[in-house]
Amino acid sequence: MQYETMPNFLKKRAFLTPERTAVYFNEQTLSFRELYENSYQAAGQLQGLGVKKNQYIGVLLKNHLDTIVILFALQLIGVKAVILNNRLSKKEIVWQINDSKAAALILENDLYEMMQDLEVPVITKDRLFAVTSESPELLEEINLNDVCTVMYTSGTTGNPKGVLHTFGNHWWSAVGSALNLGYTDSDRWLCSVPLFHISGYSILMKSVIYGMPIILHESFDADRAINDINNHHVTIMSVVGTMLYRIVDALKDSKLPNHFRCALLGGGPAPLPLLEACKAKEVPVFQSYGMTETASQIVTLAPEYSITKLGSAGKPLFPSQIKIILEDGKMASAKQAGEIIVKGPNVTKGYLNRPDVIKEKFDQGWLHTGDIGYLDEEGFLFVLDRRSDLIISGGENIYPAEIESVLLAHSDVADAGVTGINDKTWGQVPAAFIVLRNNAHVTEEELKQFCLENLAKYKVPKSFYFTEKLPRNAAKKLLRRKLSDLLQESWNHK
Amino acid sequence: MQYETMPNFLKKRAFLTPERTAVYFNEQTLSFRELYENSYQAAGQLQGLGVKKNQYIGVLLKNHLDTIVILFALQLIGVKAVILNNRLSKKEIVWQINDSKAAALILENDLYEMMQDLEVPVITKDRLFAVTSESPELLEEINLNDVCTVMYTSGTTGNPKGVLHTFGNHWWSAVGSALNLGYTDSDRWLCSVPLFHISGYSILMKSVIYGMPIILHESFDADRAINDINNHHVTIMSVVGTMLYRIVDALKDSKLPNHFRCALLGGGPAPLPLLEACKAKEVPVFQSYGMTETASQIVTLAPEYSITKLGSAGKPLFPSQIKIILEDGKMASAKQAGEIIVKGPNVTKGYLNRPDVIKEKFDQGWLHTGDIGYLDEEGFLFVLDRRSDLIISGGENIYPAEIESVLLAHSDVADAGVTGINDKTWGQVPAAFIVLRNNAHVTEEELKQFCLENLAKYKVPKSFYFTEKLPRNAAKKLLRRKLSDLLQESWNHK
Repeated sequence: MQYETMPNFLKKRAFLTPERTAVYFNEQTLSFRELYENSYQAAGQLQGLGVKKNQYIGVLLKNHLDTIVILFALQLIGVKAVILNNRLSKKEIVWQINDSKAAALILENDLYEMMQDLEVPVITKDRLFAVTSESPELLEEINLNDVCTVMYTSGTTGNPKGVLHTFGNHWWSAVGSALNLGYTDSDRWLCSVPLFHISGYSILMKSVIYGMPIILHESFDADRAINDINNHHVTIMSVVGTMLYRIVDALKDSKLPNHFRCALLGGGPAPLPLLEACKAKEVPVFQSYGMTETASQIVTLAPEYSITKLGSAGKPLFPSQIKIILEDGKMASAKQAGEIIVKGPNVTKGYLNRPDVIKEKFDQGWLHTGDIGYLDEEGFLFVLDRRSDLIISGGENIYPAEIESVLLAHSDVADAGVTGINDKTWGQVPAAFIVLRNNAHVTEEELKQFCLENLAKYKVPKSFYFTEKLPRNAAKKLLRRKLSDLLQESWNHK
Repeated sequence: MQYETMPNFLKKRAFLTPERTAVYFNEQTLSFRELYENSYQAAGQLQGLGVKKNQYIGVLLKNHLDTIVILFALQLIGVKAVILNNRLSKKEIVWQINDSKAAALILENDLYEMMQDLEVPVITKDRLFAVTSESPELLEEINLNDVCTVMYTSGTTGNPKGVLHTFGNHWWSAVGSALNLGYTDSDRWLCSVPLFHISGYSILMKSVIYGMPIILHESFDADRAINDINNHHVTIMSVVGTMLYRIVDALKDSKLPNHFRCALLGGGPAPLPLLEACKAKEVPVFQSYGMTETASQIVTLAPEYSITKLGSAGKPLFPSQIKIILEDGKMASAKQAGEIIVKGPNVTKGYLNRPDVIKEKFDQGWLHTGDIGYLDEEGFLFVLDRRSDLIISGGENIYPAEIESVLLAHSDVADAGVTGINDKTWGQVPAAFIVLRNNAHVTEEELKQFCLENLAKYKVPKSFYFTEKLPRNAAKKLLRRKLSDLLQESWNHK
C-alpha cells in the first residue's frame, strides 16, 4: 500500500523543473511548464467532450507534439489510452477498438473520412482542440497499480491482445533504465521510433520522470537523426537494427560526436557485421531484449561486452529478473536452452479482458514469454528464437497466425502458412505458402490486395509460394519452421 | 503485490557489475563481487552463531569496512539490524537493546568489557569472524515492505522510538535522490558521516543500488576529505553545517576540483555566511530537509537557488510530497506557517512496537513531523523550527525532554528545563536550567557527571543555570522557548 501512490508524473515534473525544456519538435519547443499547461488545457477539452476518468479511449495519432500533449492530457485525468498502431488496416483498428471497449477514438484529422462510421464517437485533433476547455478534474495522485496505457500485440494464436501497462510498469521501466544507463541533466533522448510503440511511449515517460528533454521526429530519417544528434546534443537514441544500418551508412566517413553515449537497440538481435561497423564508427550500441509486455527493455548489454558477448542481450535491469526453464518446468543450467521467463515491476499484469491468457502465461509473478534462449556461465542472456514464429520486420512484430487467418478467409485458399524470410533492409519480411482449393485461379496480386484490405501494409507477405501441401505434424499443427524448407525446394524447382 | 519483490540488492549488484569497486577504506578496496563474497561469508558466520531470519540484532560498530560487510551480511539473510549510535551511554544502549527485543548485539572488540553483562548474547567482531561459516540461507528476493533496519530517535516526550526502515524506504530514497541529483558511472560518494545514522547508511544503499563506489572514512576530517575529493575523484559528499564550515576553512585559498558536484547538506538549515563562503569557493551546496523517518533527505534545494531561495530546503523529491497544515487541519496557503507533513515511499511505516505512536503521527499515509515551516508561492519549503525544541548539534539530534528526564531523576533537582543555545562550532549545544530542592547543594560539575553516566556525551548540557522557577503555562507545560529569556536575564544579572 505504501508504495502504490505517487504524485501525478507530469504535474510533479512541471512543479520541480518548470523552465527546463521537455520537447523539441521541428521548430517548436515546450518547457515542462508549457507541456503541463497545454496538457491541462487538452484534459479540460477532453472532459468537455464527455471523456471520463477510468474510460478506455482509442488514440490513433502520428508522432507529433500534439500527440504528446494528448497522451499526457489523458494521464492527467486518469483516462486509459488504447494506443493504436497507425500502420494498421481499418479492419484491425476497428477490431481493437471493439475489443478494448474504447469509449471513443481520438485521431488525426485526415483519418476522419476513413473512420467516421465507427460505432463509438470519433474525435479529430481539430475538433478536440476547438472545444472550450473545462477545468479538468486532475488525478493529483496516481496509483501505480492503475492502468495507464494499452497496446495491442499478437500472439502465436488467435487475435491480438491488449497489453496493460500500469503507471508502475512505466515508472519502473524508466527507473530500471536510469540505474543501468545513468542519467545526467545534460542527457537528451532522440525519439524517432513511433510513440504508439512501447519504444516511443517509454521515452515520453522517461522525459517526465527524469526531467529530460526529448527530440521528437515524425519518423526516422538517418541524415536528420545524425544532424540532430550533433546540433541538439542528443546523448541517447532508441533504434532497431534497420535504423542502425542506415545511420552507419549515412555517416559515411564521419563519426557521431562524443556526447552521444547510447544507441539503445531493441527489436531483435543485431548481426555481427552491423556491430562491427558500429564499433568502427564508435557508435556505442546497447543491445537489449524486451517486449511490449515488459514496458520496453528488461535485459541490456553494456557496449563494452558487445563483441566479447556477441549476440547476447545482456543482463536483466536491477529491479527485474529472468530465468530459463525447461519443458518439465525445471531451471535450465548454464548454456542450456529453454523458455525465457521474466519477472519484475516493469512486467505487465496481464491483458485487457483476457483473464484466460493471464492464467496461461503467468506463474507466481513470472511471465512465460514463449521466447527461447539460454544464460551463459556469467548470466548473460542469449536469445535463440523469438516467441514461436515471431517475425520482426523493421522493428515491427508480425505474427504469422494473424496473416494466415486472413488468407484462410479467402474463398480460394484451402490452406496457408506464413514464415519470415531474411531481408537486407528489414531484417525479415513475411512470406506466404498457399494451398489453393481445387479449380481456384486466384493470382498472387489478388491475394496481396486481399491482405492489404485486412492487414497493415507491413504485414502483407512480400512473396507468395503456391504449393500442394503444408508441413503439419500428426496433430495437424502447422510446422512453420519447415516452411523455409519448402522455400528451398521451391527455389530448387525453378 | 507486483511492486513488492525485488532481487536481493547486494547479490544483484554483484551479479551486474562484479568488478566495479564498491568501497575504498584506507588502503583497502573491495569490488562488488568481493563485498558480496565477504558478506556471504559473514552471513554464514552469523548463521553459525544462531542468528536467524527476521530476528532483530543490535549493531554497535564504528565506520569501518567490516561494518559494511556485517550490515550487508544481515541483509543477505533477512535479519533486521538495530543500528545503535556508538556515542550513546551504556544505559541508553541497554535501553534500546531491551526496547527492540534484539536477540543479540554485534559490537566492536573494545566494547566487550563494557557490554558483557548484557542480558542477550554479545558478539564481538573478532568472535564473529572467527566462527566457521555455514552456507547461509540467502534471502534471494527481498520484499520491499519488510523491515531492513531500525534506528532510534527521540521525540518531544518520552523514550526514544525505533524508526522502522523497510527495504522499500531505502530503495525509494536512493531512487528519489538519483532522479534529483542524476547519476553517472563516474560518481563516487564520500561517506564521513556515521554509518549508524541514516545519512551514512543511505550512502551504503545508494552504492549497491547505483553500482557506485563509496569512500568511507572512520570520521570526518576536513583535510582528509579535501584530499580524497581530489585524489579519489569524489563527486558527492554528505555533510552537516559544521563539516562544511571546516571544509571551507581548510580550503584556505584553494578550491574543490570541478568533478566535485554536490555537497548534500543535512541536519538543519545553513546560515547565509556559510552559503556565501561556499559560493565564493565554488562548493556546490544542496541544502536539504529530512529526518530518520524519511530515510534521508525528502526535500532538496538545487544550488542554483541557494542564494535566491536563501534559507529554503527546496522541493520534495519526485516520488514524495509535502504539505503544510494549520492547527485546524486545513491546508496552509503560500507563506503561511504550519506543521510540515510528509508522504512518500521513503517515509517510515512507523516505530518498532509502538502502534500508539503510529496512530498519533500518521494520517492516511501522511506523517506529521512536528516541524514548523511554510511553502512560498513557487512551492519551495522554508523550515522555521525543527520539531518542537529539537536541538541539532553537529548533525546529531538532541531532544531536551530526554535530558530533562535524566536531570529530574537526580535527588537534588526539583525541576529542569533544557534548550539549545547557539554555538559557533556545533551550531547548537544544550543548556540546562535547574531548580534545586530546598537545602540541596549539588554543583554544576556533579550534575554534569550525573548526566555523563546516563547520556551520550554530546547530549550533556554544556552549561547549567540555576534558577528559582521555570516558565510553565497554566497546564504546567514547560515553555522551553522561554528558557532563552531566562538566559538573557541570567546574563543581565551578571
